Amino acid sequence: MNRAPIGIFDSGIGGLTVARAIYERLPHESTIYFGDTARVPYGPKSPDTVRRYSLEILHWLLDQGVKAVVIACNTSTAHALEALQAAAPVPVIGVIEPGARAAVSAMRGGPIGVIGTAGTIASNAYARAIQSAKPGAAVEQRACPLFVPLVEEGWFDHPAAELIAAEYLEPMKRARVDVMVLGCTHYPLLKPLLQRTLGPDIRLIDSGEETAALVQGALRSSGLGAPPGATPEHRFVVSDDEARFRQVGSRFIGERLGKAEVVALG
Amino acid sequence: MNRAPIGIFDSGIGGLTVARAIYERLPHESTIYFGDTARVPYGPKSPDTVRRYSLEILHWLLDQGVKAVVIACNTSTAHALEALQAAAPVPVIGVIEPGARAAVSAMRGGPIGVIGTAGTIASNAYARAIQSAKPGAAVEQRACPLFVPLVEEGWFDHPAAELIAAEYLEPMKRARVDVMVLGCTHYPLLKPLLQRTLGPDIRLIDSGEETAALVQGALRSSGLGAPPGATPEHRFVVSDDEARFRQVGSRFIGERLGKAEVVALG
Repeated sequence: MNRAPIGIFDSGIGGLTVARAIYERLPHESTIYFGDTARVPYGPKSPDTVRRYSLEILHWLLDQGVKAVVIACNTSTAHALEALQAAAPVPVIGVIEPGARAAVSAMRGGPIGVIGTAGTIASNAYARAIQSAKPGAAVEQRACPLFVPLVEEGWFDHPAAELIAAEYLEPMKRARVDVMVLGCTHYPLLKPLLQRTLGPDIRLIDSGEETAALVQGALRSSGLGAPPGATPEHRFVVSDDEARFRQVGSRFIGERLGKAEVVALG
Repeated sequence: MNRAPIGIFDSGIGGLTVARAIYERLPHESTIYFGDTARVPYGPKSPDTVRRYSLEILHWLLDQGVKAVVIACNTSTAHALEALQAAAPVPVIGVIEPGARAAVSAMRGGPIGVIGTAGTIASNAYARAIQSAKPGAAVEQRACPLFVPLVEEGWFDHPAAELIAAEYLEPMKRARVDVMVLGCTHYPLLKPLLQRTLGPDIRLIDSGEETAALVQGALRSSGLGAPPGATPEHRFVVSDDEARFRQVGSRFIGERLGKAEVVALG
């Protein structure tokens, strides 16, 4: 038993969907969420820069006494997971492999669809993780740059969102994917829209939920879980623009998001 | 007469609309465009950080021998124009004041509309510049976060773009603005859509065109213009991700955009 918090970090706000999945699956665990809002987005930055930023955040989280670290950011997972695992004395878990493995388990013969930001799709990280879990698996990828601002606007059911989703997902329907990975932490808020657009037979994989399941397993196997009756505490820390984080973040996790502290790194 | 290039910079790609306005109005002038694609966007960054980045770019441009500098970025103009004017031995011109002055000249009694990114609207920089040109002028502002990704996708006439524009501009119609400033360098590519949405009676102010006119005046009055028959050269420099800059940038300025050099700053 261990009451120390789980550290969760992202380049900004999107990782709150992963945090939410952890709150739901592990209701007695305390957390510290770090959003690097001063340096968001990581997508266009070089792998070296992303690794350097991620290591800074890791060390800050370790200084707070976290018992495990979740990289709730696709770009950081793609470029920095191994470096963080090598540097940390606690388990470090990224979002890509859990989503890729869940997609491989759910596939039924058709290709696996993957949607994400332009940076994540260009990095090919999901395709590589899927093919390492199942060599030769076909992957249909599509960058969906309008989905993040749609989510941040809260236009989940706007007629424009329907048209945008129809356009982005048309290649998925044409390729007859039967499972599609939401390869961006913002996208779980679009799940009803995406499911409506693709039809009920296509299984959507939420990387955040799969990651939360992996965290649960890691805490159990190492005896690091919080005591069953523990009352959790959730801290939120950002590197800039706390007001916008709270305003947009409340769309992601509702009233759980009280105030956020501001900490400058680097 | 002076054949030295004009330096133009932006946090990324959007400033190319300002560059285009300069090519069209000053066809004999050579230019160097610097896009800080490694650190885009500037909007969420603190004023101090934006000022520091802008000064780094200014000094790099001065090292290239530019005879004038255009800040083709709303955020940098809002936070760094005065610091750059104090630091530079050449004229430095920003995008906000030319747009604000043109709007004040064109107003016919109704309020002045201003659209921009969330950062520009929150900074209130256009409203301040408008009210300093015409004290008491009414300003109707609206952040339009989906417009930048729509432009970068090239969806200028997509049905989703029509719906998004209708939603964002509804308050402008209700307030009966008769002139609206495009307070983001990406927006000139949406001009036909915006004009269709607002109707033919509302005048759109393109800050880039107004800035180019001011540059023309500054070069004339200081005798710094290129000789009338000069053949212009246009250099493009970015701090990261040259491939994406070329791909998206060609939507902004077409075939003029050949290759771009990569220069790391900071």
